[in-house]
Amino acid sequence: MDNFVFNSPTKFVFGKETENQVGDLLKSYNAKKVLIHYGTGSIKRSGLFDRVVESIAAQSIDYIELGGVVPNPRDTLVYEGIDLCKKEKVDFILAVGGGSVIDSAKAIAAGALYDGDFWDFWDKKQEITEALKVGVILTIPAAGSEGSNSSVITKTDGMLKRGLNCEIYRPTFAIINPELTYTLPAYQTAAGIIDMMSHILERYLTKSKNVILVDRLAEGTLVSIIEAARVVMKEPTNYEARATICWASTIAHNGFLGVGRISDWATHRLEHELSALYDVTHGAGLAVMFPAYMRYTIMEDIQRYRRFAIKVFGIKDNKHKPIKVATAGINALESFFKEIGMPTSFKEIGANGEDIPKLVEKLRINVGERVGNFKSLTMEDAENIYHIACK
Amino acid sequence: MDNFVFNSPTKFVFGKETENQVGDLLKSYNAKKVLIHYGTGSIKRSGLFDRVVESIAAQSIDYIELGGVVPNPRDTLVYEGIDLCKKEKVDFILAVGGGSVIDSAKAIAAGALYDGDFWDFWDKKQEITEALKVGVILTIPAAGSEGSNSSVITKTDGMLKRGLNCEIYRPTFAIINPELTYTLPAYQTAAGIIDMMSHILERYLTKSKNVILVDRLAEGTLVSIIEAARVVMKEPTNYEARATICWASTIAHNGFLGVGRISDWATHRLEHELSALYDVTHGAGLAVMFPAYMRYTIMEDIQRYRRFAIKVFGIKDNKHKPIKVATAGINALESFFKEIGMPTSFKEIGANGEDIPKLVEKLRINVGERVGNFKSLTMEDAENIYHIACK
Repeated sequence: MDNFVFNSPTKFVFGKETENQVGDLLKSYNAKKVLIHYGTGSIKRSGLFDRVVESIAAQSIDYIELGGVVPNPRDTLVYEGIDLCKKEKVDFILAVGGGSVIDSAKAIAAGALYDGDFWDFWDKKQEITEALKVGVILTIPAAGSEGSNSSVITKTDGMLKRGLNCEIYRPTFAIINPELTYTLPAYQTAAGIIDMMSHILERYLTKSKNVILVDRLAEGTLVSIIEAARVVMKEPTNYEARATICWASTIAHNGFLGVGRISDWATHRLEHELSALYDVTHGAGLAVMFPAYMRYTIMEDIQRYRRFAIKVFGIKDNKHKPIKVATAGINALESFFKEIGMPTSFKEIGANGEDIPKLVEKLRINVGERVGNFKSLTMEDAENIYHIACK
Repeated sequence: MDNFVFNSPTKFVFGKETENQVGDLLKSYNAKKVLIHYGTGSIKRSGLFDRVVESIAAQSIDYIELGGVVPNPRDTLVYEGIDLCKKEKVDFILAVGGGSVIDSAKAIAAGALYDGDFWDFWDKKQEITEALKVGVILTIPAAGSEGSNSSVITKTDGMLKRGLNCEIYRPTFAIINPELTYTLPAYQTAAGIIDMMSHILERYLTKSKNVILVDRLAEGTLVSIIEAARVVMKEPTNYEARATICWASTIAHNGFLGVGRISDWATHRLEHELSALYDVTHGAGLAVMFPAYMRYTIMEDIQRYRRFAIKVFGIKDNKHKPIKVATAGINALESFFKEIGMPTSFKEIGANGEDIPKLVEKLRINVGERVGNFKSLTMEDAENIYHIACK
């Protein structure tokens, strides 16, 4: 087990009707003027926005709003939010939505207290030293951004997609009501499920030794996600299955399943180029890339892949032919992705094998000559993995 | 899954030589004058105290010390600590030790900013509204107090043992270096292992429905503890096994394995009376009480006990005779307790069946007419369980 620091200070308020506590929560953190940040307006159509505003108003807290966050959130709206916060003296940002909205809120929170261009932070030219507080009402369980220190923003100019980890903008509180996820379309539900599974797999695939305790926690969480996913695809309003998925999504990415080990993240970086170029849903891109990545790295730690197959998919063990077991596990993962309606090849997401050199070039700009820790991939490895995903 | 709030803000700094970071950590929280609180002096003999002082002095932070905490920590030393903090204007308490030292530090932290008698809080006559910050260097993994909101103090007058949960004195940071636990005697190591397993079991035994995700996390943690315990009893300086036990002990009690469910805690309350009357080690008392509690409540949820047996001890399933499976699981738990050198009957801890009426009377004073949630035990039930433990 490697040395680690684990700090997940976010207050998670989980369960039915918990969004009605948002006013009390904001008050407990002494919020005076809140920016309500959201996406393309479904929270208005569903009535959620009205309930949130009612709860905030009941505490005599002032608010303004900024909608319009799109998947793969853009720098352009972040700039707009920063200007608004400065002009209106906002002291608390409330993200109502999924990962894109929360990531956008984090970037606004950092930019609002900075005189320069917020992209300096994502460009690693400056370090964030302060940020407005961020609170969350989660409507899409996937990115885990409600409990994580990360934010991924796309620079419209050149479609550069960049992630940044920073403790300062980790959400102060996150309200998670599984009922709010009932109306998520099947495609988005499935993409979210793959995103959270990927957050676990990026940590599970490690070269660190003696990490069996966290391996078991990760496997247990993956099994529960798969089980609940199968229920939710048939019964979108099954509270218990939605609740399992919501909580799994949070613990998949608040750092808990990554303690004591070096995690990988190569597949995420490879996928970022896909979704930046084709504007494909992150989870769908991951469904395409993860089986390809796993097949390419299977010999890096065949025993780990064998264990994954047995513990997560119940594949029958074969000590003498671990490659058979490991391969069956990866095939089972890919079949599960297909089963819940996700793409598993370039073609299905409108990607083109001819663009692979362009993807690799963008990747090189973003990560340099190497990416990943489970296997330190060269750009040639990256190209090979894109080809496997292309099929 | 029940609604819940989960908030574990403690910063955990885990791994080899991490105690040398204590000065930096205290500085980052702006500590000016620290009370170093500890037990019976083993930290001085081992050289740990000197390393801690060196790290604190390197940051030019002032400190005073108060040793002498005993297992089942007493109110008398808490009063002494409170006086010292008030007189010396202490602003941060650093607990260097195990659960008793940390619990004592929490009580001092609350009392130092209160004009009345700190026992008012434990007596539930007053609520804590502020406390000094508490930091921890853990030397005994067991109680989980380094990441929990609880503190158990014994009032010397009448030997009343009382617990109190309060978010305000939850530790700000906890340094956990498994190497510091190498020198723990086998008995204390084993008692700690039982304590942490009990913290998981108190949460595992629930009537809440649809809690399978957290069940799996709990089972995975229990399996890892048992596996590591067997290594540690033979090789006390095995880093990886000590590390597994240390981290398991923390997550067993920071609330993570209890989300979404009503937990039980009857066995802890029954044991508190045992250790208050006989001053027996808490973990040893739990080793005596838990199998008795489980046998008495086996029919409350036979399927849960059946699952426990299969998942934690690998007992062969028998769908038609769940009672056989469940009983084998409890027997396996008791055998494991014996295997690591723990007592499993009144006699072995010097307790006397004739004292059972006295134990029940003390219990009634502390909890009222009922205790526990998995089964709401009457005082007659409690008496029966003591008799089962008496054997």
